[in-house]
Amino acid sequence: MAKGFIKPVKGTRDFYPQDKVWQNWLYEKAKEASQAFGYQEYEGPILESFSLYSAKSAEEIIKNQSFIIPVKGRPVQDSLILRPELTPTLARMIAAREYELAFPVRWWSWGRFFRYEAPQRGRGREFYQWNIDLLGQDCPNADAETIAVGVWFLASLGLTAADVVIKVNDRKYLDDKFDLINIPQNSRLAIFRIIDKKDKVAAGDFEAMLIEAGLTKLQIKDLGLILKDYDYSQESPWLTELFSSLSDLGVGDWVEFDPTIVRGFDYYTDTVFEARTKNRQGRALFGGGRYQNLVNDVGGTRKIGGVGLAVGDMMVYEVLSDLGRLPVLSALPAKILMTVFNEETFRSSLLIVGRLRGLGVNIEMFLDYQTSLAKQLAYANKKGFSKVLIVGPEEKTSQEATVKDLVSGQQKRVKIKDLAVFLKD
Amino acid sequence: MAKGFIKPVKGTRDFYPQDKVWQNWLYEKAKEASQAFGYQEYEGPILESFSLYSAKSAEEIIKNQSFIIPVKGRPVQDSLILRPELTPTLARMIAAREYELAFPVRWWSWGRFFRYEAPQRGRGREFYQWNIDLLGQDCPNADAETIAVGVWFLASLGLTAADVVIKVNDRKYLDDKFDLINIPQNSRLAIFRIIDKKDKVAAGDFEAMLIEAGLTKLQIKDLGLILKDYDYSQESPWLTELFSSLSDLGVGDWVEFDPTIVRGFDYYTDTVFEARTKNRQGRALFGGGRYQNLVNDVGGTRKIGGVGLAVGDMMVYEVLSDLGRLPVLSALPAKILMTVFNEETFRSSLLIVGRLRGLGVNIEMFLDYQTSLAKQLAYANKKGFSKVLIVGPEEKTSQEATVKDLVSGQQKRVKIKDLAVFLKD
Repeated sequence: MAKGFIKPVKGTRDFYPQDKVWQNWLYEKAKEASQAFGYQEYEGPILESFSLYSAKSAEEIIKNQSFIIPVKGRPVQDSLILRPELTPTLARMIAAREYELAFPVRWWSWGRFFRYEAPQRGRGREFYQWNIDLLGQDCPNADAETIAVGVWFLASLGLTAADVVIKVNDRKYLDDKFDLINIPQNSRLAIFRIIDKKDKVAAGDFEAMLIEAGLTKLQIKDLGLILKDYDYSQESPWLTELFSSLSDLGVGDWVEFDPTIVRGFDYYTDTVFEARTKNRQGRALFGGGRYQNLVNDVGGTRKIGGVGLAVGDMMVYEVLSDLGRLPVLSALPAKILMTVFNEETFRSSLLIVGRLRGLGVNIEMFLDYQTSLAKQLAYANKKGFSKVLIVGPEEKTSQEATVKDLVSGQQKRVKIKDLAVFLKD
Repeated sequence: MAKGFIKPVKGTRDFYPQDKVWQNWLYEKAKEASQAFGYQEYEGPILESFSLYSAKSAEEIIKNQSFIIPVKGRPVQDSLILRPELTPTLARMIAAREYELAFPVRWWSWGRFFRYEAPQRGRGREFYQWNIDLLGQDCPNADAETIAVGVWFLASLGLTAADVVIKVNDRKYLDDKFDLINIPQNSRLAIFRIIDKKDKVAAGDFEAMLIEAGLTKLQIKDLGLILKDYDYSQESPWLTELFSSLSDLGVGDWVEFDPTIVRGFDYYTDTVFEARTKNRQGRALFGGGRYQNLVNDVGGTRKIGGVGLAVGDMMVYEVLSDLGRLPVLSALPAKILMTVFNEETFRSSLLIVGRLRGLGVNIEMFLDYQTSLAKQLAYANKKGFSKVLIVGPEEKTSQEATVKDLVSGQQKRVKIKDLAVFLKD
């Protein structure tokens, strides 16, 4: 038997009813946005094989920030992993039914994910993530729709283009620029990873990392110019069509081109984007991009490209909290409490409650008839019920219940047959 | 890069949209039952500390059937565990706020759980579980309510008392019987564990286990009689009141007393119960019971007892499947597809779609204008849309859209301003 208080694991969260109701609110917003655009809900396992992510995900996350469950007597490649993200699972599921599914596939999911990293504001070791993905439409319009669904979601939370900016880039556009300054193909993944860290390291460290990756001083200078050039217009028909489509979708004022955005996942091949608040630093509100090879990387034989985004619950909470826009939500599913007067009236109260529930009234009943009515009323007030019902000997005889409104303090006797209608008003 | 198809982990499930919609249906039924009785939704972490369960759970599950994540350089007690069940987490959360919460607490949860056991029909290594618990009302009426919520749920799935029986017992009642045949206190937990295995082992093995636990031949004979005595009525006021309350709650025909039911968790102290189908063997549909010490066992200082039940999703699926009562559910959130005629009309289609979504119409849009209309219609038919919209050059000019009903085959031109109302009808 344990001595003393057992604590939750570091970086995990307990969701008391008041926390859970916020989570549910967020889920409903994600669901509304997804369904408005016709996305279908799906879900994958939490336990995946390590090899699924070593195929192509983010090196740092897999090597240093994942929970790994070793399998006895097996090499590390056979270990299990608590999913750090969903896209590899999605690719695996798509590949498994690549000849059965009707494309384009539009899917969304809301689930739990795990990263073994230092807990801090907006980051935990367990978190929820909303994922939406569109596969089988390889055009900038698809990328624009993905971003538009994300904006629909943010707007439904009460955020505006004055609060959030979505920075958009295209890895292929950068790739073309890399051609011009002769960065070899086999260095480019490393360069993308370094650019992704640019904002997190000092300028000197950024340059040192590029030198280590094999770039010359001249290439570093040229790369610096590329990352400062905010005009793609002469060179990228893809980005031109993407921004035009974003404008048609009504989200033009939320987005801007930013050549320094590459995102951390190795599987992104084309469009990449991330949403950030305008007034503060910190982790992105959401991030996403296009991945043309991932379904093949996990074993698919058809060429199926996709685009998607992921939103974590913790940054959304921090941002809404900072802006003072967290909604006030009730965590009480039943607003009415049936008290119990004494042992003799208990059965009458129970039968009334059963009848009310059958008529669609959510109602809680106090079950211990040895508790005084005063204590039951104190409980009702502490928990925030709006009404209590009392059935004493008199009410029992007259086939009535006393309805006490805890807000106004008024009370009234109501015939049992009229009770459901009275309580629903 | 991986070669070949990457498989899901053994004992896990992929939830394609058609599977997920069934899961959501089940979740809604659990939610309705919980809320009808005033239970509030909560959730705990998936990662818990090993020590939380070693406090008091089920020895076999913790030692042999759990996923353990070792923490480098730390003893096994400091390992992390993927939660195999929820009650210890609940007790921990209650203990942490034992002086703040308003009791009685009524909470429910729907979440994912993990057991490292051989996958078979109705069992997986990952599963969903609905938990409901009522804490702070130590009376048989509370136990009866818990069972009644379970019955409400089963009935909402289309099951009846002809399909399912809920077997009820009281560990205290057995305890009193054990007094009579002089089973020592320190053997009783072992005896309960052996009784729980009774149906899974041969009669000879059952006796051998009891002998190993220190029982004499005479005690074993007496125990046999106790486990065959289906009449508690003279000896248990608790069970008498429980069955009376179950009857008042309208679920009398679902329940029966069974002295052989003890359930597998060590923390149960009083009432225990399980639901089983009448026509087949297999794992219980749900199980539960009263635990008077668990909140203290995890560090609580107030004396807070509780009662609860847990329902796994996989057995429910198997039972409904066997009985041919799985519902037919649509996995399409948008029933309408906007096609795209060509590049020139693309923007018109996109603007109409944006307008419709703003008016509350869920609608999917085909985004690649290089795909022929015939192929788009084939996609719409394969996926099961009920209507498609077409905006060609003529419709663009006349500010209309052609609405084609894929069921009847009929089509009609509708003014864009009337479209939302037309589609909602």
